[in-house]
Amino acid sequence: MTVGDLGEFGLIAAIAARLPRGARTVIGVGDDAAVLATPDGRVVATTDLLIEARHFRRDWSGPADIGGKAAARNLADVAAMGATPIALLVGLATPADLPVAWAQDLVSGIVAECARTGATVVGGDVSSADTIMLAATALGDLAGREPVTRAGARPGDLLAVTGVLGHSAAGLALLRAGLAEPAALVTAYRWPRPPYHAGPEAAALGATSMIDISDGLVADTGHVAEASGVLVDIDTARLAPGGDLLAAAARLDASGPAGPGDSAEPGGLSRPLVWMLTGGEDHALVATFPPVIVLPAHWTVIGQIRQGRGVRVDGQVFLGRPGWDHFI
Amino acid sequence: MTVGDLGEFGLIAAIAARLPRGARTVIGVGDDAAVLATPDGRVVATTDLLIEARHFRRDWSGPADIGGKAAARNLADVAAMGATPIALLVGLATPADLPVAWAQDLVSGIVAECARTGATVVGGDVSSADTIMLAATALGDLAGREPVTRAGARPGDLLAVTGVLGHSAAGLALLRAGLAEPAALVTAYRWPRPPYHAGPEAAALGATSMIDISDGLVADTGHVAEASGVLVDIDTARLAPGGDLLAAAARLDASGPAGPGDSAEPGGLSRPLVWMLTGGEDHALVATFPPVIVLPAHWTVIGQIRQGRGVRVDGQVFLGRPGWDHFI
Repeated sequence: MTVGDLGEFGLIAAIAARLPRGARTVIGVGDDAAVLATPDGRVVATTDLLIEARHFRRDWSGPADIGGKAAARNLADVAAMGATPIALLVGLATPADLPVAWAQDLVSGIVAECARTGATVVGGDVSSADTIMLAATALGDLAGREPVTRAGARPGDLLAVTGVLGHSAAGLALLRAGLAEPAALVTAYRWPRPPYHAGPEAAALGATSMIDISDGLVADTGHVAEASGVLVDIDTARLAPGGDLLAAAARLDASGPAGPGDSAEPGGLSRPLVWMLTGGEDHALVATFPPVIVLPAHWTVIGQIRQGRGVRVDGQVFLGRPGWDHFI
Repeated sequence: MTVGDLGEFGLIAAIAARLPRGARTVIGVGDDAAVLATPDGRVVATTDLLIEARHFRRDWSGPADIGGKAAARNLADVAAMGATPIALLVGLATPADLPVAWAQDLVSGIVAECARTGATVVGGDVSSADTIMLAATALGDLAGREPVTRAGARPGDLLAVTGVLGHSAAGLALLRAGLAEPAALVTAYRWPRPPYHAGPEAAALGATSMIDISDGLVADTGHVAEASGVLVDIDTARLAPGGDLLAAAARLDASGPAGPGDSAEPGGLSRPLVWMLTGGEDHALVATFPPVIVLPAHWTVIGQIRQGRGVRVDGQVFLGRPGWDHFI
């Protein structure tokens, strides 16, 4: 059974049957639009695209992975404002010959990732297309907190991260090389697990700026540097690559010549450190805090904010490609 | 200059420079997510896809048309709940060889259509893709009114429409036949003008149900019939095709054999009536009202709600294809 056999409205019904109703949902799937409760008097909103062959390959990721990742990248943007996700809207374009079961598994992944945050799917659209395209829009609730933007970092603040860095990039490098171990890194590439709870936590602690790492630590903290008018100084001695990253680098070294980009080790940095500095899609949260704030143990200080402009790595200009650009 | 030359962040900057800031915008474009004011304590949300070769052709529509249409179909869904649009988020996927000017004109169309409703673009995403895809998400404000769903129509209610029916379908038929007149119909196909203001108006008047006509009058009132558990009885004597529709049919009759679907005249109905019954994308608003309600002149009664199920046209089951299905 394909989505073409079911037709547009049959596909919508098959998807809608898998969607739990959320506590914030006044009107959910099935009308012209959804209605959500926003007692805070504000709503956080962000949108993202996930496109076959650009953002995922069906031979590298299963449908639940792809759905989970589409939801995660979007929900993480809400968390990075200091908000809690409450709802997701999903546009799904697919070839008519896609199996219905594939689409249902995709939705299951979306629903599962939303459930990690308390959000539910409240609306969507389906269309035919030559390749699979997902458009996700997440809404979030600030619960009375001020949003944490990219623009509030001040000289003297500490730069701290929670969540993992470089795991998704390492997993992608393994898949490109035809390797499957360490499996945790391949899983991290397929379905990242952003530390959503840490977004509102950082806001409550008094974070002065925050961003999620979707394009790479250097690239994304570059946005903070630019918006805040400061210099971000990353200390690689604090990054401390874990055993999985070291093992992945060793396996790739042993497997022969690396693919394009994988061998780049700008400034003499090790491959695990380059993954941590330039790998996106783990959706770790990076925030800046005044140094007087006592951070919970799951936040790791990795640098400082100074007067100046741009990003430095161990005091030097970073010579590698800082992150991802969809048109390069 | 192409979007590939500019790169992802250059393209975002080029787009962001064209976006006015809205009265509801707490935080707009440029951070992880936008923040909107929702003093009503609820927010209306809907999402739509617009895909090259499925929803538009670049040789039939200019970039401003395509942007305007993408915004219109989405904003109309907000109006159909009885709400006023306040914000739009836009995902744009495009080949790297797309001229930057084309993307800028697309955004100008989006901005212009938003301005008709008071909404502003508050966020988005860009990606590369083989064909152009737009994903739009509109947010709206109910201003204390109850949302008008598809589920409240009751036997005895009158069925009324505001906005145009069949113009977009006629314009598409003209383009398919290589014709350009009546120009107003071709324009209606390229860039529909939904009667947004009539959505909140209908809610305030006491509409019991409402929907916008995106797939066709028969198909969309079928959703109202199903959700409300009633029979929708459309009276074609009330539809009264205008001069443009009659002229378009005459030109198409004179131009030779019609394309697939264009010659279908189920039940002996004229081609203009078939356009009005099955043509989507004009985004007219159709609502049901208790008969005691006095309707403003721009609402036209076109039928009645009765006990039963489904849609009847002049008391008969409609034999044609009721509307659009993306997978057929």
